[in-house]
Amino acid sequence: MAEHITPASLAANNANRRYSFFHEDDSLPLPFRAKLADYARSGYDRGHQVPAADAKWSQEAMDSTFVLTNMCPQVGDGFNRDYWAHFEEFCRELVYSGKYPSVRIVTGPLYLPKKDPVDQKWRVSYEVIGNPPNVAVPTHFYKVIYGEDAVESPVGRVALGAFVLPNAPIANQKSLRDFEVPLEAIERASGMTFADKLPLERRKRLCEEVKCEILVREFDKAKQQASVRAGNAKQGAVVGPSPDRSGVPSPITRGGPPTSEQKGFWG
Amino acid sequence: MAEHITPASLAANNANRRYSFFHEDDSLPLPFRAKLADYARSGYDRGHQVPAADAKWSQEAMDSTFVLTNMCPQVGDGFNRDYWAHFEEFCRELVYSGKYPSVRIVTGPLYLPKKDPVDQKWRVSYEVIGNPPNVAVPTHFYKVIYGEDAVESPVGRVALGAFVLPNAPIANQKSLRDFEVPLEAIERASGMTFADKLPLERRKRLCEEVKCEILVREFDKAKQQASVRAGNAKQGAVVGPSPDRSGVPSPITRGGPPTSEQKGFWG
Repeated sequence: MAEHITPASLAANNANRRYSFFHEDDSLPLPFRAKLADYARSGYDRGHQVPAADAKWSQEAMDSTFVLTNMCPQVGDGFNRDYWAHFEEFCRELVYSGKYPSVRIVTGPLYLPKKDPVDQKWRVSYEVIGNPPNVAVPTHFYKVIYGEDAVESPVGRVALGAFVLPNAPIANQKSLRDFEVPLEAIERASGMTFADKLPLERRKRLCEEVKCEILVREFDKAKQQASVRAGNAKQGAVVGPSPDRSGVPSPITRGGPPTSEQKGFWG
Repeated sequence: MAEHITPASLAANNANRRYSFFHEDDSLPLPFRAKLADYARSGYDRGHQVPAADAKWSQEAMDSTFVLTNMCPQVGDGFNRDYWAHFEEFCRELVYSGKYPSVRIVTGPLYLPKKDPVDQKWRVSYEVIGNPPNVAVPTHFYKVIYGEDAVESPVGRVALGAFVLPNAPIANQKSLRDFEVPLEAIERASGMTFADKLPLERRKRLCEEVKCEILVREFDKAKQQASVRAGNAKQGAVVGPSPDRSGVPSPITRGGPPTSEQKGFWG
């Protein structure tokens, strides 16, 4: 799923997620369609790929992010409701901070192999939810981030960031840099190419331009939990960060030095 | 992979598999391409989807069946070199027997979930061969078979057969009927539709028209083993049945009554 955010698109506040509802994608033939029932009692959140909070510029746009083709089953606590939500906020901060007037983001699922410690063979293994089983639970998620120095410029430079996160609880202390991977790794794993048409001389590395660290705002967490208790975010609804950003430092200008070297991608 | 066989295409003998070589598909970008090295020492055969033996009508056609995009890693003994090869012969017999003047076959890999006996969850799990891991080992293979009463007829009836076999050794005693599934099951599992444009009134069920049993010719097996010993079929080459068919009864007119009821598809 691809999206484009700008200062204008994020500044608009014409939509409210309380009016948006998760819905099946009627454009898909029934046998190939994810069903609302597939997620029920699965233990997984219906995790937005394009975040609802990036689509506040119109109610229609926000509603469209609630279609099940924009969802994957995501681990809730520690991931979708925590680290992953902070990562989404990191993306918006690239715009909020004034660093990039235009940011494009591609988000999607991956099914990555792991080396079996017993027989040393590589295997892909993932759960399928629904009865009969119907929706695959990704092992990982990726985001490819394009921070553009200029809007619609054929010569402007583009800061590229490629990240792969496991669909599992991640401690908030963990640096986002630990999840940075070569773009080619996501290309190989997804079967897609992401920057064919972008000449090498126009590319920069996002994590050399900004601090690739997430920002955790504990008061948001408290708000979310209050909201869950009030019944507004039960059963897998994605709870976005609070729109109230007053006094919050930018994760781009904050944070310590980059952590350990980039780790091996597979396994 | 789809193919079309007719009495004329099978009667021609203009190709020899000794002149055909397994080769990578240069039309695919390198990161997405199966490599010859991926299969080396993997323990799996390079298993043809469209069989080489169906392409004897021209050397070029046969050569093209040796491209790695026509291959999947298949278990050799008991499957690719045995039951699966007999199944391929069953398909040719639909033509040889004179029952159908035109047979179309679609063959491909599947990755099916299994219910975990411990936690009762459905999971897909499969090996990936190559170093780094590059080629997925399917859990199952399907064939959709269309036996046409007439060639290129817009009104003729079509006998449909849909089969799913595990990528594992299968005893030759096993009835092919045990692997028959509703076409919809393959559609759901593969994400493709196979008979949208064929009205219901033109459809028949293949296994009601012919005995869905494989034919095992033990003298072929002896020949294959001699060939392997002679070094002609080492390391994953697909050894097809002998072209010498003299005195062999047709599996379509032979065999006992259908065995047990069609089994559940999943798991």
